[in-house]
Amino acid sequence: MKILSSQTGKVYLVGAGPGDPDLLTLKGASHLKKADVVIYDRLVNPLLLDLTSTQSEKIFVGKKGRHYSFPQKEINQLLVRRAQQGYQVVRLKGGDPLLFGRGGEEALYLTQHKIPFEVIPGVTSALAVPASVGIPATHRDVSSSVTIVAGQQMAATNSSTDWDRLGQISDTLIVLMPLGNLRHIVSQLILHGRGLDTPAALIESGTMENQRQITASLGQIVTKSKQTRITSPAVLVIGDVVKLSKSLTKNHLFSSMGKIPPIKLQAKKSS
Amino acid sequence: MKILSSQTGKVYLVGAGPGDPDLLTLKGASHLKKADVVIYDRLVNPLLLDLTSTQSEKIFVGKKGRHYSFPQKEINQLLVRRAQQGYQVVRLKGGDPLLFGRGGEEALYLTQHKIPFEVIPGVTSALAVPASVGIPATHRDVSSSVTIVAGQQMAATNSSTDWDRLGQISDTLIVLMPLGNLRHIVSQLILHGRGLDTPAALIESGTMENQRQITASLGQIVTKSKQTRITSPAVLVIGDVVKLSKSLTKNHLFSSMGKIPPIKLQAKKSS
Repeated sequence: MKILSSQTGKVYLVGAGPGDPDLLTLKGASHLKKADVVIYDRLVNPLLLDLTSTQSEKIFVGKKGRHYSFPQKEINQLLVRRAQQGYQVVRLKGGDPLLFGRGGEEALYLTQHKIPFEVIPGVTSALAVPASVGIPATHRDVSSSVTIVAGQQMAATNSSTDWDRLGQISDTLIVLMPLGNLRHIVSQLILHGRGLDTPAALIESGTMENQRQITASLGQIVTKSKQTRITSPAVLVIGDVVKLSKSLTKNHLFSSMGKIPPIKLQAKKSS
Repeated sequence: MKILSSQTGKVYLVGAGPGDPDLLTLKGASHLKKADVVIYDRLVNPLLLDLTSTQSEKIFVGKKGRHYSFPQKEINQLLVRRAQQGYQVVRLKGGDPLLFGRGGEEALYLTQHKIPFEVIPGVTSALAVPASVGIPATHRDVSSSVTIVAGQQMAATNSSTDWDRLGQISDTLIVLMPLGNLRHIVSQLILHGRGLDTPAALIESGTMENQRQITASLGQIVTKSKQTRITSPAVLVIGDVVKLSKSLTKNHLFSSMGKIPPIKLQAKKSS
């Protein structure tokens, strides 16, 4: 780390993308290379750390063990403290920093503490993970709207009106991190308007080497996910666009680490 | 262009991101540098062409004049022809290639003609443009779902049930390219359940140097967009997350070309 400066540093809230490290943006990579401090999550591909300076401080703030998460309040305070110490801080978050993942909360906390910051958007898993198995979010004459929700927030829905809304929402419904509440989410959606035979797909570790996917009707997806032991991180896609996957994956490669030549990241030797 | 080869080339459907060329992915940049042929749209920042080889063929397939668009069928055929001639082709599309913008159709056409291809996801304007003015798509206790639609498809909605759905859909509603049908879209949404006082924002040329934005209630947004002469390309955001913009843009910089140091793209001299 560089010598402490009397000037306040800056925080960059950077979207790391869906998993494949080459799906980081040029701007994200540039800030990652220059950062004094990198604070990263469980969903961030550790290969991205190869881009950082060897002298930078790397702080993991993801889950430790099964139930313990680094408290959001401590992450907020850490961001402020390191910036106040004069460091250039990259807060690296899976996917896009402002779509779930509490990036907005971190931004608000930084604002309240008068810390300069900048948001660098990322490729969201909500679109890139379905794309990696040949499922477009929208497609002419098949789907003209897409809704993105997160499993945990969705499961917390307790009014029937809200479930009605979710059941009948958009042509394509994409659920991030659905596994913790899969049975509940799927049964409520069926109860509130989605047909049992609606095509559905579950993609595990999308865009990564160990990517796996299953497709089934909405009525069968829970059973099939258990049989195949799909595990986190996963993305659930519901809607007719899922049917396109078969023809779209026939003669080609979608962007996925498992199917493309090994990625080449240029590590920065020192700052 | 390189010497014709007897082997079929490959097509890369690359998301160019929302406008700021540094929001291209590392993988997108890498394929752009190596491409023999680059076929690009109106919504793609022309600065990205600086990344290409001087020897590559660049083909613009965006709108010519006010009403004439390059027909989709001709674009499809061009992709196939160039690949059959043995070239590595990059099809560069604004935002993400599979969220509207007919990337799925191009992929399907390539499949039918047995042309190998790969989809390289991009940062979608639907999320990055609101982010560039301090509007997160979702935010704890404010919004836990986001729906993305395109203005043209939305305006084509003619059943009352579908408008009911759109009026009551998700906490955050994001409309891409809304200007051609703004009055109709807004009045239908109000008629079908969105309150007149719902916060709304219109962002013109998001993440670009000439970015402009207005915020107003849903009831006032059409009038204000006329007064301020907001023009295409634009993104409309509807929902309480818009209110966060004021506090989130107080002490910081969101990622936007107009507010950050000039971008540096390394042009490839030749291939």
